Amino acid sequence: MTSASIAVVAGDGIGQEVMPAAIRCVDAVTAHYDVSLDWREYDWGSDFYRRTGAMMPVDGIDQLSKHDAIFLGAVGTPDIPDTETLWGLLIPIRREFQQYVNLRPARTLPGLTPVLRADQPIDMVIVRENNEGEYSEIGGRYARGTEAEAAIQEAVFTRTGITRVARFAADLAVTRRGSLTSATKSNGIVHTMPFWDEVVAGVVDEVAADHPGLTLRNVLVDALAAALVLRPWDFDVIVASNLLGDILSDLASAITGSIGVAPSANLNPPRRYPSMFEPVHGSAPDIAGQGIANPIGQIWSGALMLDHLGQPRAAAHLVAAFEQALADGVRTRDLGGTAGTEEFVTAVLANIDSVGPTLDAQQE
Amino acid sequence: MTSASIAVVAGDGIGQEVMPAAIRCVDAVTAHYDVSLDWREYDWGSDFYRRTGAMMPVDGIDQLSKHDAIFLGAVGTPDIPDTETLWGLLIPIRREFQQYVNLRPARTLPGLTPVLRADQPIDMVIVRENNEGEYSEIGGRYARGTEAEAAIQEAVFTRTGITRVARFAADLAVTRRGSLTSATKSNGIVHTMPFWDEVVAGVVDEVAADHPGLTLRNVLVDALAAALVLRPWDFDVIVASNLLGDILSDLASAITGSIGVAPSANLNPPRRYPSMFEPVHGSAPDIAGQGIANPIGQIWSGALMLDHLGQPRAAAHLVAAFEQALADGVRTRDLGGTAGTEEFVTAVLANIDSVGPTLDAQQE
Ligand SMILES: CC(C)[C@H](C(=O)O)[C@@H](O)C(=O)O
Ligand SMILES: CC(C)[C@H](C(=O)O)[C@@H](O)C(=O)O
Repeated sequence: MTSASIAVVAGDGIGQEVMPAAIRCVDAVTAHYDVSLDWREYDWGSDFYRRTGAMMPVDGIDQLSKHDAIFLGAVGTPDIPDTETLWGLLIPIRREFQQYVNLRPARTLPGLTPVLRADQPIDMVIVRENNEGEYSEIGGRYARGTEAEAAIQEAVFTRTGITRVARFAADLAVTRRGSLTSATKSNGIVHTMPFWDEVVAGVVDEVAADHPGLTLRNVLVDALAAALVLRPWDFDVIVASNLLGDILSDLASAITGSIGVAPSANLNPPRRYPSMFEPVHGSAPDIAGQGIANPIGQIWSGALMLDHLGQPRAAAHLVAAFEQALADGVRTRDLGGTAGTEEFVTAVLANIDSVGPTLDAQQE
Repeated sequence: MTSASIAVVAGDGIGQEVMPAAIRCVDAVTAHYDVSLDWREYDWGSDFYRRTGAMMPVDGIDQLSKHDAIFLGAVGTPDIPDTETLWGLLIPIRREFQQYVNLRPARTLPGLTPVLRADQPIDMVIVRENNEGEYSEIGGRYARGTEAEAAIQEAVFTRTGITRVARFAADLAVTRRGSLTSATKSNGIVHTMPFWDEVVAGVVDEVAADHPGLTLRNVLVDALAAALVLRPWDFDVIVASNLLGDILSDLASAITGSIGVAPSANLNPPRRYPSMFEPVHGSAPDIAGQGIANPIGQIWSGALMLDHLGQPRAAAHLVAAFEQALADGVRTRDLGGTAGTEEFVTAVLANIDSVGPTLDAQQE
């Protein structure tokens, strides 16, 4: 029996609802395998901020570093600026732990009404650079309050940063359909984006030397956004900068039917630091506290975490269980159904017991 | 009889095909009204570059400044870097003539197969900031060719620049459904985007003082991209920065069915300099020279130009004529039809004569 220690930060809004829901599902599935997770909860977030003036303690990063992984709910609340909440908790974790890959799968799920009329199956993964680029702290305001006021923001791209995320994406594409798309805007953003293109092409050349099936397409982000709507089934792995990846991944999950289902993994691939798993959706203050939040984004993020912890069978089992619930028509409101969070979780828990053995048999 | 002088730059690729097509349609429609356009062709673009080493003559901007408007086809070719072609022709025109508004309507057209399953009518206009922001020339490369190499790009936003585009968008929203959406990313891009939010809110407050029906929603660009797929009919006028507007407008036109139909107006609202009208699509080298390009983007841009030149009835007439062609099932290949450029134009020309009188009668 292996065990892993998980830092749990449920955070704000619906994070408080989808997190316990997901933990129950993950525990139920690990009971079928040779692994147990040891959850350690941290009450960090906006309430903590209201009490202490900070989103986490001064030694927060240090405390998290002792765990094998971080399971995050949602961060953000209407009455505190995002520059305090997100930049006080989510962004520092991504950066301090060099979680330079933000992995965001988007694929067709059973039982969901397709958004697009032409509903060929969609199965893509967006590999978003998660540490540098357009999200930089460098910049500021000039001549504040005057007519002449200006704000400047520097985007910073490094060879190191682009190389490592491109390598991850290329390696991932090799294990899938071998088709890598790089989002660019080198026709408009003339300093950083041509550099991005150059480094990505170099990495792909290297990886392709051993895997000649690997192909690279550079697609301008505006055309890519359009293509994701017109023929999303054409895409396998997409690598993108921090901002472009942020936009494209929300778009890709909307195309598959809902933002509420999208998971993400913030990975430190060398495993020097813990990785973090969180749904793509936010704290959704408008529906928080009503028991109606869709827990799939959090549960699926839990599956990505199991995979990362070396438990791919448990991960696949968990995914199969929530997919079965969807196939059976159990759906939360954002998906056009009537189920509450609890009803959906009950269905997943039942499926964990029923779909489990089948899956085991298949995979062995 | 008024007459206006138009600089025509057909440019590269399919620009050479859709431009003459659109000019014939515009001429046919103006024949019904008290206006004639005096077209002056400039052979600038990539071929000109191959001959002279520049996309336009040194005094190109000066030559264009003598005209009432600029009608542009497409710019760009595979064998010359975009930094030469686009930044040698398209971008300088937008900047030198302070065309700070890039207006991009996206709406449901008759006879097109809807891309989205839920096909409520879509009718929005994207007002994209066109002169500053993320497309800045400031920045460069550091430690070129070494492991430490980095590229830096500064995004520059000014109070002047944000104010004027926001005012245009707010004024436009007032003439439509009164609903303005501002695309932002102030939770991730912490210097420029909160400034954008602040200035936009100030402008809207001012405009709303006289027009209390005007509402403003700030929507994070990632969520907005998703919302455009899930409920595009919810949007009326969207104001966005240069890069975000570029992405959102391609996305919006894809949602209505094709990038090939989308028009754009690069406006200098004080009319100190000529404005420029161009389709959203590019030079499409893959289909150039085959006579199959969809001319709607160029024709519709011609309608925007007529409107700008004080001929709203001629503009509406032209739009009605190509919409009728679509309604009659005449469609180019990108729209799932079989018509070539010529066949489509023939249908539009016939409709200009048949729909014309009806429309006149309606509007008087
Ligand atoms: C060609 C490119 C620089 C341009 C832009 O991004 O502005 C194009 O995509 C457009 O939208 O007009
Ligand atoms: C909250 C915000 C800073 C964040 C981001 O843009 O990275 C979010 O949108 C995400 O995608 O995780």
